[in-house]
Order: sequence, then C-alpha cells, then structure tokens
Amino acid sequence: MQTQNKYIYLVIVVCHIILYCTSITEQSVLRFEAPHPFEPQSAINLSPPPPVVFVTKTFTSQIDHFSFNPYLGSFRVRYLINDTYYQPGSPILFYTGNEGRIEAFANNTLIMWQMAPVINAALVFVEHRYYGNSMPFGDHSMDNASTLAYLTAEQALADFAYFLTNLKYLEPRLVAKRSPVIAIGGSYGGMLSAWMRQKYPHLVQGALASSAPVLQFINVTSCYAFSAAVSNAFTKASPNCSANIRKSWSAIDRTAASGQSGLLKLSKIFATCSPLTSKSDVNGLKAWIVSAYVTAAMVNYPYPASFLLPLPAWPVASICRPISSVASVSDKSNNDDISLLSAVSAGLNRYYYNYTGGVACLNLTVDPSSATLDDRGWGAQSCNEMVMPDSCANGITDMLQPTGDFDLEAYTASCLSQFGIRPRPNWVMTQFAGAVDPIACSNIFYANGDLDPWAPGGVKTSPNPSCPAELMKNAAHHLDLRAADARDPPDVARIRKLQWQAVQRWCKHFHQSVANANNDHAVWNRHLK
Amino acid sequence: MQTQNKYIYLVIVVCHIILYCTSITEQSVLRFEAPHPFEPQSAINLSPPPPVVFVTKTFTSQIDHFSFNPYLGSFRVRYLINDTYYQPGSPILFYTGNEGRIEAFANNTLIMWQMAPVINAALVFVEHRYYGNSMPFGDHSMDNASTLAYLTAEQALADFAYFLTNLKYLEPRLVAKRSPVIAIGGSYGGMLSAWMRQKYPHLVQGALASSAPVLQFINVTSCYAFSAAVSNAFTKASPNCSANIRKSWSAIDRTAASGQSGLLKLSKIFATCSPLTSKSDVNGLKAWIVSAYVTAAMVNYPYPASFLLPLPAWPVASICRPISSVASVSDKSNNDDISLLSAVSAGLNRYYYNYTGGVACLNLTVDPSSATLDDRGWGAQSCNEMVMPDSCANGITDMLQPTGDFDLEAYTASCLSQFGIRPRPNWVMTQFAGAVDPIACSNIFYANGDLDPWAPGGVKTSPNPSCPAELMKNAAHHLDLRAADARDPPDVARIRKLQWQAVQRWCKHFHQSVANANNDHAVWNRHLK
Repeated sequence: MQTQNKYIYLVIVVCHIILYCTSITEQSVLRFEAPHPFEPQSAINLSPPPPVVFVTKTFTSQIDHFSFNPYLGSFRVRYLINDTYYQPGSPILFYTGNEGRIEAFANNTLIMWQMAPVINAALVFVEHRYYGNSMPFGDHSMDNASTLAYLTAEQALADFAYFLTNLKYLEPRLVAKRSPVIAIGGSYGGMLSAWMRQKYPHLVQGALASSAPVLQFINVTSCYAFSAAVSNAFTKASPNCSANIRKSWSAIDRTAASGQSGLLKLSKIFATCSPLTSKSDVNGLKAWIVSAYVTAAMVNYPYPASFLLPLPAWPVASICRPISSVASVSDKSNNDDISLLSAVSAGLNRYYYNYTGGVACLNLTVDPSSATLDDRGWGAQSCNEMVMPDSCANGITDMLQPTGDFDLEAYTASCLSQFGIRPRPNWVMTQFAGAVDPIACSNIFYANGDLDPWAPGGVKTSPNPSCPAELMKNAAHHLDLRAADARDPPDVARIRKLQWQAVQRWCKHFHQSVANANNDHAVWNRHLK
Repeated sequence: MQTQNKYIYLVIVVCHIILYCTSITEQSVLRFEAPHPFEPQSAINLSPPPPVVFVTKTFTSQIDHFSFNPYLGSFRVRYLINDTYYQPGSPILFYTGNEGRIEAFANNTLIMWQMAPVINAALVFVEHRYYGNSMPFGDHSMDNASTLAYLTAEQALADFAYFLTNLKYLEPRLVAKRSPVIAIGGSYGGMLSAWMRQKYPHLVQGALASSAPVLQFINVTSCYAFSAAVSNAFTKASPNCSANIRKSWSAIDRTAASGQSGLLKLSKIFATCSPLTSKSDVNGLKAWIVSAYVTAAMVNYPYPASFLLPLPAWPVASICRPISSVASVSDKSNNDDISLLSAVSAGLNRYYYNYTGGVACLNLTVDPSSATLDDRGWGAQSCNEMVMPDSCANGITDMLQPTGDFDLEAYTASCLSQFGIRPRPNWVMTQFAGAVDPIACSNIFYANGDLDPWAPGGVKTSPNPSCPAELMKNAAHHLDLRAADARDPPDVARIRKLQWQAVQRWCKHFHQSVANANNDHAVWNRHLK
C-alpha cells in the first residue's frame, strides 16, 4: 500500500514521430470519402516541444453514470485543450487523466506537444474525478465512504466517454465524427487508456498504454515481483550495490539493537532531523529508504529530470556509486555496519533527497517523491477496487527489507478503519481483463520498461498482433511517454517508431471505416456528428 | 412507450445444429494443450427437445457494482442450470436473461435443449435483476426511484460477469477455464448478449444476438421505422389488408363522430365488454387494435404457437383473411365503414384474442399479449436508459393510426411523474455502440427477421466478417431461437447453419488461445481456474 500510494504521479510523453499524416485536403474533409492519407515518411527529427499552452474548461458529468439515483446530481470535470494545430479530420490525442491534477500530465507529456504540430493534432487532457478540481462533492468529496463511493475507474472512463460523445457541443472545432481519437496514458493512466479502448472502442480508435500494470492483481501477478524488479534495476547498475543494500537491513537492526547509543549512531549516520528513539522509528527509517529505492527505480531516466523530485541522470546508478564502493561487508563487524550504512546514507543524500543541495537533514515524515502531487484520492481507490499487492519482499529474490505475504484480511481491516470501504480485490480483473483477451483485443499498444518495477504487472506478451506488448530495454516507468531526447536508450526510439506506426494504422482504419457509409457504424457516427 | 412495454416478452431458441463438437478426450482435458476438436459434420436432424429440466439456484451479487456505497449491500440472483450433458471443456450456453421470469426463457428456448445433448453443453439461464425472484430490495424493489435506481443493463451485465467469474465456486462441475461460454439471447436479451461480448470478451467467447434492436435509439433509427415494418408484414400477407387497415382509423372516427349511436355501433361491431362512451374510449380501442397488429407481427410464426398468446400459424395472414376480403372501400359510405370495421373485428376475434374460443367480448383493459408475463420492471428501464422511440406512425409509410413525432419532453415528464426518473436517452449509444464498431467488434452474430417490427432497429449490415448481420427471410421476432421445425422458412435453416458455424469457430479459437499458455490471457485464465 505504501508503494501504491506513491504510484506513478506523473505521466509524460507519447511516441516518437517517424512518419506523419499529411494534412487532409478540403475535398476529403467535405466529401468524407477518401481515407485520411497517412503517408509513411522516413524518420523525422522532432523540434523541441512548443510551449505548453492550453485552455482550461469544464463539462458537466453524472456523479453516478450507472445508476439513476435521483439524489445524485452532476458535477464539473475539468479538461485542458489545445487546438492550435488541429484541422478537421486529423487526430485528437486524448490523455486519460489519472491520479493527480491534470496540469501535471499536460506539463509532463511533452511528446504530445512535439507531435501535435506535425500531425495537426488536437490535444485534450481530461482530469480524473476526485483529483485536482474535478470534485463530485466539492470540498466534501473526500469526507467519508459515501462521498468517496464514486471514485472508480469505471466512473472515470464513463466521464471520458460522455465527454467524447459530447465533443461536438463542447468543442465545435473538433469534428469528432471525422477525427480518430487516440487514448494515451502512463501508469494508471495507461491502464485507463487500455480499458477505454476495450470498453468504448467506438469512441477511442486506439490506445497507447505505457507502463500500465493491468495485471498487478491478486492471483495474477506475484506480490513479490515488484520488489524483485526494483532490485534488478539496482543489480543492473551494480551487482555489489544490491548485494550491499540487501545486507544493510540487518546492519540497521544490529546497530539499533545496541540500545540508545545505537539509535543515536543511526540518527547521526542518516542525519535524521529528529533522533530515532524507538524500534518503530527504525522501522520508519527502513520504510523511507525502501520507498526511496522504489522511486529511484521508477524514474531511473537517462538524463537529469524533476518529475517526482529533482534527480540526476540514471539516479539508481548514482545512488549505487557510494554503496557499491563498500567491498564485501562481513555481516558481523560493527565497523563494517557503520561503513555500509554511511555509504547508503551518502548515496541517498547526494543523489536522492538532497541532490540539488540545501536539505540540512533527513526528514522521515516527508516523502520527497510525493511533495508536489495531489494524489490524495489514491488511498481510497486502492481500498475499493485497485487492490494491487506489490510491496511484498523476501530479501532473496529482492534486496529489500523482508515483509510477510500479502495479508488481505489485514488490508481489508485497514481499509475499513481508514475509509469505511471494503475492498473488492477481484473486481478489476472481472471488469477489465478483456483488455488482454487474445481474440477480442484490438488497437492497444502495451509498452513497458525493463528497469521499471511496474513492468512485471504489465502485459508481457502480445495478446495478438493488434495489441503488441513491447519491452523497452534500459527504460524506466513510461520513458516512452517523455519527450524524445538524444540521451534516450536506442530501444526507446525503436518502441516509439512501432507506437507511431500503430497510431498511423489506427487512424487509417478509422478513416476507411467511416468512409464506408454503408454500415451501421456510419449510422452511429451520424449520431455522433 | 406503449409498444415498448409490450416488447419481446419471451425469448425462444438457439441455432440449428449442422455440425457438432466431438467430445474432447480425457488427455486433452488434462493436458490442456490440444484445441477442442470441433469436427465439421454434415447436417444433423435434431431430435425433439428433451424435457426442460433444470436446477434452480442463486448467487450473491452487488446491488451496485460500480460504486462502493457502504449502505448498499448484496442480493440473490437466480439462475437455472442443466449440466446433464456437460463434459469438461465443452461449451457453456449462457442465456442472458431479459425482462421476465427466467423460467419463461428456459422453457421457450427449446433449441438450446436440442443442442445440449449433441455438443455436451451445459445450459445456464441467469435471471435479470428486478425480474422474477431476483429482487435487489425484495418486495420493495419497485417502490420508488431510489429502489429502482440499479435497474440498468450495465448492472445486469455485471451480475452476469460476476457470475461467470465465480463459476468455479458456484458450479465446480463447470470447468470454466476450459469451457467456452456462448452468450445467447433474443430481443432485449439479444442486446444483452451482444453487449456482454463487447464489454466482457474474456468471459464470453461469442454471442448469438437474435432480433436485438441495439440501434433503436434516438437519432439512430427513425421512430417511424417500427410501424412501417409492422405494416410491411401485413402488406406482405396481403396488400389489400394493410390498405384497408390504413382506412379503418378514419372509418372508426366517422362512425364515432355520429354521437352516442355511433359509439354504440362501434361497441357492437367490436363486441366490447363495456360500451364505448367517449372519445377517450375510442382512442383506447384504436390503441388496443394497434397493439394487436404489433404483437401479431412480432410473433408471426409459421406454425401455431402460444408464446405471448395462443395464435394460429402465420397470425398476420390469418387476421388479414377477413380484412382483405373487403374490397375497395370508398372512405365515404357509412355502409362501407361498417363492413370494413366488421372485417377488422372478425380478424382480431377469430385469429387473435379469441383464437382458442371462449372469449365472450373484447376487454379493452386487458392486453392479451402480456397477461402471462411479469415484466413490470420494463416501465422503469424504458424511463431511465432504454429510451427506444418506436411508436411513431404517419399513416403513409405505415398503416397505423397517425401519431405525432416522438416528443422527448413529454416522455420525460411522463417518466418523472410515473417513476421520479429522468431518462438519459443518449446514454445507451455512448455506453454500448462498441458492439457494432467495425474495427473492434468480434464474435457477435446479429440475426433479424424481415417480418419483425424490431428489425429496422437491429444491425442490418455486418460491422465486419467476425460480426455478421443476417436477415432471415419470412421470419418474425427471433424465430431462429425457436426449436428447429419442419415448417420453418428455408432461410431460417440457412441462418442457423451460419450461426452454428460461428459458434464452432468461437469455441475452436477459445481452445486454441487457452492452449497457448505463453500469454497473459493464460495468466488471467489461471486466475479464473
């Protein structure tokens, strides 16, 4: 749960542009017969992204799309739009907002901004209900289980569907009938984009689902897989680093076991703002460190970035530098423990929470990776349907402080006490596993990074050729969605090319099918108009 | 709304068996590698259906699947099961219950019973919430808008999905992991089976959607199309019949216009149980007659049947026999009016409400077509999301008493006053139009009868080859779902053969995809067990 709460707080960019859609002619727009001419082109060097400029708007949506409870009304959902480059018939790139203020996703998804001028795309980012300013019950939205009841992926997807159906009224410039809509999202946003395509394929012609852990659920993906992936990222940076980290937990325990002097020693080594005074404080220190490793692994990007917090290029390798320099600790000697823990502390200080300097001490009450994000709703979501056990560790297949197995009973009790919500842990797979169905899946591109702790819970093998699943070498959490960068690992460019070809195919098929007026889809499409 | 309330109250049968699945070997069941061997066979003459025998059970489902409202609990949904013929790996034929007691569908879907022994299928019929004994709030389920709030197709489909996911616990004999599930339904049940495949393709490998008016919604299908189809069925039986019926409304008006003596004359001609005394009574007479024509057109089967009420073979042609025998009425003469109306009355008496005799007079307060059905919930459904305008008539493209255009405002006012429910008339298309999407649609077989008034609101052109749309010549409402009969029009046998080939393909693909353990679907499937 700890890890889930610091889940993917930002989402970044889309896909490398290798080919581009030539703008459609006035004739084809008006006659609506010829398919939108997507002409393959050789590689294009993208210009730097234009400034992130958008208009902030809202639309009215049902608080509960799936009941007709007369006492539930409607609320305003925010969306951001840029139609500067749009031409009728060209694509609408639709970011399926996840757990945070929608601006965070617009500001961090720069490749959408790089792509828009090239393909004349409109950019739309719709905020997820219960985040940012899209609050069903205003300031009371988070009050209790009754007000939180409608905070589900199904309801958020229905908001998106309602929005897309009403685009003609909301945004007369966006001729939805003639424009393919491509859903784009990373992490939980990627899950939403995949699910949007599965549930509403008439509204969304394809989905780029990046680093979307759609299989990180009970009995589907082991709850130990996430920790193993965190550790693999560290082992890849330096085998000695993960080995030393694995030993560091007992070094902390041994040091703490010598009583107050040991606690004082630990406090000094880690430069904690408040001295550690209890076993519980020591556990807090360990949890903070685990969380730091997890975050570093998630945003282990090849250049300095400030997504969750300002970090150097390849933060995992950076953190590992001092840690891996401590050779063959014996597990026995007090001095060895101190040099190991000092190295851990140095790695985290220099390359994690104090990378830009100016942080005088380690404040264990602050999670530096979630300071800038407004993801308060995720706690409730992880307690209703998004039960994604991921924080089990055994110290064997991973380097982390060992935990017990996932305890659904304790988890449920905690959710009931915290929110009054009883989780339904199997519901998401019942509801959404169609998005990986080998026969029904269509037009979803699953991409994961092999350095990303969420990759084991993602789609690892393509359900079918229409739904490819690609693993990006040397990539962390949805690196493919970040702006194309010269320092990107080569495999990311390969994936972006495949993604872009997929988007091309989807747009082309859409135009072909809409051009064929002699089917019932065209009838529905007239309704959309 | 009148017509909607008497919508498809029963559902009948499935598909002609031309080929059959040989039972799988023990080895393939246990190793789960070889695809289920469906071997095409030449035409099989089906035996008469075995006795309809089932076990009645229930399962617990959420009242609201899409919220976590702590004050809403669970309820029991009924289902009927027959696993007499089932072997592990063979198909589960799953009837998606619609508006009525589930027994009605089990008892009237005889081809499922004919098919089961041949393919070793299990038969499952799940009751739709708010019908029969599946009442979310017990006896209070229909009390008011608050208790009716969860009576939607989405919630019913979620009941079905929850049921299928939990099949291994509920019915250990049905090895869901190894058995393809084929959704089957007619009319609204056919809409549900198509939507089930679209929304839950990992749980339902294909759908036979018979006479499913998934496009009978505002701005998609004209509200005049239904009446035109009713009239076409009569014209096909006898052009003079529909022409005379078209003239009969003004004949009624002229007769009534002569005051009490006219009303008395009308009462006598139609043998009403209570004398007509007002203009409103005359309108009631007309509405009753329109409803009779609609019902006769829906169940215009080639043999005597007792589905909605006991009727002769080809009831439309029967009703037409006296009516069409009245030659070239002048629209002017009083005597002509009386002979025309006498013929209308004779047709309806002899071949509709009094076909089996013993009915002394015409009781306008009783709709003979809905006497045996418990579809009270449909009123609320047609007032929340199932807004399917179908009862417009103009007397030009149809033979019925002209009405105005569909008036959404008046409709809404009536729903608010009747149930306290405000309709959302566009929601169904937003939610479910994916089921006709030309790119995403898969494994749905749409069949309609060219004599069926619901056919114009059905799928008329195949979205793609995986989702064929077939029109059965000389067939009324879901005739294909009735038991195979020597008197069936030849085209029905053609359609059943195509349906059966489709079911074969779906089952085969399922076994192939499940046999391939190297994909994430297999992971999900392990979850299903």
